[in-house]
Amino acid sequence: MARGRHISVDAYLQGITGGDIAMLARAITLVESTLPQHRETAEQIVEQCLPLSGNSVRIGVTGVPGVGKSSFIEKFGIYLSENHQKKIAVLAVDPTSSISKGSILGDKTRMEQLSVLPNVFIRPSPSGQSLGGVTRRTRETIYLCEAAGYDTIIVETVGVGQSETAVHSMVDFFLLLMLSGAGDELQGIKRGIMEMADALMINKADGDNADRAKRAAVEYRRAMHLFPPHPGGWTPQTGTCSALTGAGMETVWQLIEDYRQQTQANQYFYEKRKSQSVYWMEETIQDHIRMLFFRQEKLKAAYDTYKEALVQGRITSYKAAAALLQLFTEHIRNS
Amino acid sequence: MARGRHISVDAYLQGITGGDIAMLARAITLVESTLPQHRETAEQIVEQCLPLSGNSVRIGVTGVPGVGKSSFIEKFGIYLSENHQKKIAVLAVDPTSSISKGSILGDKTRMEQLSVLPNVFIRPSPSGQSLGGVTRRTRETIYLCEAAGYDTIIVETVGVGQSETAVHSMVDFFLLLMLSGAGDELQGIKRGIMEMADALMINKADGDNADRAKRAAVEYRRAMHLFPPHPGGWTPQTGTCSALTGAGMETVWQLIEDYRQQTQANQYFYEKRKSQSVYWMEETIQDHIRMLFFRQEKLKAAYDTYKEALVQGRITSYKAAAALLQLFTEHIRNS
Repeated sequence: MARGRHISVDAYLQGITGGDIAMLARAITLVESTLPQHRETAEQIVEQCLPLSGNSVRIGVTGVPGVGKSSFIEKFGIYLSENHQKKIAVLAVDPTSSISKGSILGDKTRMEQLSVLPNVFIRPSPSGQSLGGVTRRTRETIYLCEAAGYDTIIVETVGVGQSETAVHSMVDFFLLLMLSGAGDELQGIKRGIMEMADALMINKADGDNADRAKRAAVEYRRAMHLFPPHPGGWTPQTGTCSALTGAGMETVWQLIEDYRQQTQANQYFYEKRKSQSVYWMEETIQDHIRMLFFRQEKLKAAYDTYKEALVQGRITSYKAAAALLQLFTEHIRNS
Repeated sequence: MARGRHISVDAYLQGITGGDIAMLARAITLVESTLPQHRETAEQIVEQCLPLSGNSVRIGVTGVPGVGKSSFIEKFGIYLSENHQKKIAVLAVDPTSSISKGSILGDKTRMEQLSVLPNVFIRPSPSGQSLGGVTRRTRETIYLCEAAGYDTIIVETVGVGQSETAVHSMVDFFLLLMLSGAGDELQGIKRGIMEMADALMINKADGDNADRAKRAAVEYRRAMHLFPPHPGGWTPQTGTCSALTGAGMETVWQLIEDYRQQTQANQYFYEKRKSQSVYWMEETIQDHIRMLFFRQEKLKAAYDTYKEALVQGRITSYKAAAALLQLFTEHIRNS
């Protein structure tokens, strides 16, 4: 197909559902584009894919930098592909990639073995975007991949900032990777994330580290037992794994399967997806309003002024909010 | 003073700062009122109190219903009043009180011993309000109480729904009360709250239960050691207490004092208050926009329609958001 030639939405759809990886990749590029003419086509493609989507298990993988998320995903993906004939799409949410440079999945040499397998589709994180932008693109990409028949969607987080919360709000199952020995290596993990994990695996449980990892898993299991109950009636699990030896991959898959069966039986799986959709709608509205504020010099300047007054204790949060809302509605009326 | 006679803002202020409890109570009634003419006076009073506020430690107390929050606060308040000559204000955040009827602090027979002490001011939660309404009123009441010289503000949560998050966002120190033995009694606590606690005390550590409580505290201590680090450099503490015998009250006060000194030295105490103010400003803006939606029949109907389409998978979150935003801006332009 000639580059630049106009491709119809129907052609995209036929390509995506017909197993044409290049076409899927091009459609995702449209989804990631910020050009208005691309957005329009992208929205039509996503809309057409929507009724074909949903038939998958969406797995979020998080953990601090250095915990071995990418290596884990590579090994786990190979295991799923070889032992369970899964069609796997690997995506990433990394709103900081443009700043940190060392982007997750951005390094082409990573996941080398996984990327060459048939039935595996790996897509690096779109870089240089706001968290709101990245999450929209990732969620829309999930729909496209599902319409293309991928039944296992793995979303990797960068493990810092707000990316864990974002990924937790778009997946069915949230896996937290940890290292043995608590303390420093937790730096960067947002408080509250541990209580949201559906499973916690101690990675790098190999060689000299295997015993230590096992002891750590026991400690975490005991700790998680003290957590408030899971809303889906699930008991969050702990264990050990090694992206080096492949140990624990079967355990992880088995517990994701258990989770899926249990929460589909009690409907939590479906209810969670519904409330995630509503959550993203409301987040998008808020994002948009925030953008309206920060794109307008006058509003942005007012925001900064009121924030300063607030921080200095010269005004209450409620008065500052009322003043900004007043400016905001005036701006909309005059535009 | 004759009922119904107009009281000037200056008179309110003189009363509040001069130790006139009746005047403080009347000012809070204005703050809680939804009548526009009351709101205007209330805002002026709060504004005048603002420069006089802040010189206190704000303590949030949470835990599931039945954990003994009110009894704990009563005993703790008596301890602080008798041993440390503190001036204590006890407030409550209970957005559900109008529904649940059994309101916290609403029962006049509770905190009997504490309420009769001089230097203690107890104010029940304003009932029948939205969470947004309740939190604004509570935050403004904190300013008034601080301007009145109360140096220890205790805010009780109902322990379900969103009230913990709201209270966590308005206090300096967040105390989670628990019972010995994990499991059922955690039902209702929001996941993620445990990781946000600055201290976790096992209550009802008395009689036959004392040993079990001590063992539970050890378990929780071990678990909390595995949590991500506290942003203020603080190490969350665990212990036992008894609202019946008064055991542990000194420990709790000592660790709140340690917390205050440590986080004031490293500035976290002040930074947290600043970011809380900004948080409430942004929450208020969002609340207001949400209200604009739900107060307009047309917008509310559209919201429900798009939400239904979303939940049925007929539209994406982003398209639904865009459509609602369009209606929203049109509504503002035409109003």
